[in-house]
Amino acid sequence: MPKRPDIYGGEFDIIRDFFAPLTTGNHGSLGLTDDAAVLGLPAGKELAITADTLVCDVHFRRNDPARTVAHKLLAVNLSDLAAMGATPYAYTLAVAWPGDLDLEWIKDFAAGLGAAQEHWRIDLVGGDTVRTPGPMTLNLTAFGFIETGRALTRSSVCDGDRLFVSGSLGDAALGLRVLQGELAPDNTADRHHLIERYQQPTPRIALGGRLIGTANAAIDISDGLLADVGHMARASGVDIQVNARELPLSEPAEKLISGTPELLEAAYAGGDDYELVFAVPADRSLNFANLSRELKLPITEIGHAMKCRGDNATVKLMGTNEVEINVTRTGYRHF
Amino acid sequence: MPKRPDIYGGEFDIIRDFFAPLTTGNHGSLGLTDDAAVLGLPAGKELAITADTLVCDVHFRRNDPARTVAHKLLAVNLSDLAAMGATPYAYTLAVAWPGDLDLEWIKDFAAGLGAAQEHWRIDLVGGDTVRTPGPMTLNLTAFGFIETGRALTRSSVCDGDRLFVSGSLGDAALGLRVLQGELAPDNTADRHHLIERYQQPTPRIALGGRLIGTANAAIDISDGLLADVGHMARASGVDIQVNARELPLSEPAEKLISGTPELLEAAYAGGDDYELVFAVPADRSLNFANLSRELKLPITEIGHAMKCRGDNATVKLMGTNEVEINVTRTGYRHF
Repeated sequence: MPKRPDIYGGEFDIIRDFFAPLTTGNHGSLGLTDDAAVLGLPAGKELAITADTLVCDVHFRRNDPARTVAHKLLAVNLSDLAAMGATPYAYTLAVAWPGDLDLEWIKDFAAGLGAAQEHWRIDLVGGDTVRTPGPMTLNLTAFGFIETGRALTRSSVCDGDRLFVSGSLGDAALGLRVLQGELAPDNTADRHHLIERYQQPTPRIALGGRLIGTANAAIDISDGLLADVGHMARASGVDIQVNARELPLSEPAEKLISGTPELLEAAYAGGDDYELVFAVPADRSLNFANLSRELKLPITEIGHAMKCRGDNATVKLMGTNEVEINVTRTGYRHF
Repeated sequence: MPKRPDIYGGEFDIIRDFFAPLTTGNHGSLGLTDDAAVLGLPAGKELAITADTLVCDVHFRRNDPARTVAHKLLAVNLSDLAAMGATPYAYTLAVAWPGDLDLEWIKDFAAGLGAAQEHWRIDLVGGDTVRTPGPMTLNLTAFGFIETGRALTRSSVCDGDRLFVSGSLGDAALGLRVLQGELAPDNTADRHHLIERYQQPTPRIALGGRLIGTANAAIDISDGLLADVGHMARASGVDIQVNARELPLSEPAEKLISGTPELLEAAYAGGDDYELVFAVPADRSLNFANLSRELKLPITEIGHAMKCRGDNATVKLMGTNEVEINVTRTGYRHF
């Protein structure tokens, strides 16, 4: 019989049995037994800090496996660190568990965190667990190192910069629709690929680190390509043009979109991609083909930045023959 | 007409209008417009990190004023920093708003944070806002400075240490019962005092800083005096004796308890006090009367630590004539 957390030993047993091992001996965690964690910082480094919250039925599905929810929670935060060029260092976890939550779920969630943190070399150092009468609410705050003064931001795109994106776009949004039964890929491998991209995104940490000193600006795609490029454009005060025909698609996404062209929206507005978009000065000669091979990650030029022509910075999606595509939705609205 | 956040401009307008001003120009916040915040750390300092979550209807009441909820959210985190002896530096905020939340509430909440952070000299540097179909869930992660290697912990109480507590005990737990209509103080000032102690606790930051080099160990009282002293005892491997007759009570609490002696439970198990309990070696000659005058804060000796006699560290509450009081509840159980 799976035990419920309220008839198990309560918060302290759960922390001791499932979460304290995730500190993997990190001294600053104080074994998760104290009031706070304590972190040092090597000379010449700054700390990049990011926090993201996932709410059940909003940011993940109730039936998503606990391990993949853990993976996603860590990944979306590490994606923010990647966009700054920071190296993952430690994280804190603040969870609100519903009272009827199965203890097995918590155990699988902790195991998922363990696998993900080992892969990305980051330790749990602190946090909080409470009970909620509402949906499970998971907050993770991730800390990364970065050389002082070298953090990439989204606000330094310059007129003339070339715009690049990593990986492929739209897979996660299509994967969600597959899970919802709205789309049916024609084979199991495609189905698996799209769902995995939704449930278990990959933060582009190595790429982010390599962009320092190369890119003028970077951002990760969480809300949707055009929405996030819009954040860059407004923060930088430039117009940005994105070319629809250049958007990189995986083979499974390509197949679905070639059958139903409207599904291209998933690539420019779907969100949850956790790829990096970055702007590079046109006169900076860089061999992205080599970097792409080294990182085993596609890097695709998808547009460019121009002087801002109106009162507000804008983003245009261009189709063939330089005709602007009328976009009704640029990305996820938080509320 | 109050506007609802979903028909206001959405997340970004709310952040810009209400929360970006709370960065008070802190450079590392990047104006709350980027993927992450960036914090430096002065040479020779470590960062203390603590996170606490407040859930509506669990940790605060739906009718509590937004300003006091903001105050409490910041205070409970700063209390953890105080228990380590850390100096407040910055915080991040991750909030899950219910869809029907009044925009005025958010505005008042931000104003409350503004007032509290000005008082405690700490800036907002980052965070996240999402929407939830459940109760409002507020997570704050606070960062403090501390000299490297000097953080106070709860795990270093020694045999023979004298145990002290700041302020008065039980006010908050009695204040909650006043708000719930279960208790009626005989005058408005008493009522106000007890409710304020529940809604707007005071983190003992100055005291925490002064305890470094003086106390062997410290903890803040959030769960309840005996529960938190129990955490200290187990982490340190010592038995601790607390003397019921020494528990410091405010005048309003004293009056209620003298009428109904069972209410003394609020002082030893009520929780939400956010006072500091700390252990000092018996041979360390310190003038706590002077420190108390300087900080305008009562400091009371309430017990002592002894060698652990059984397999597990225990905490005893002693009444008059050295008779142990049988305690059925030591503090708040998280679940």
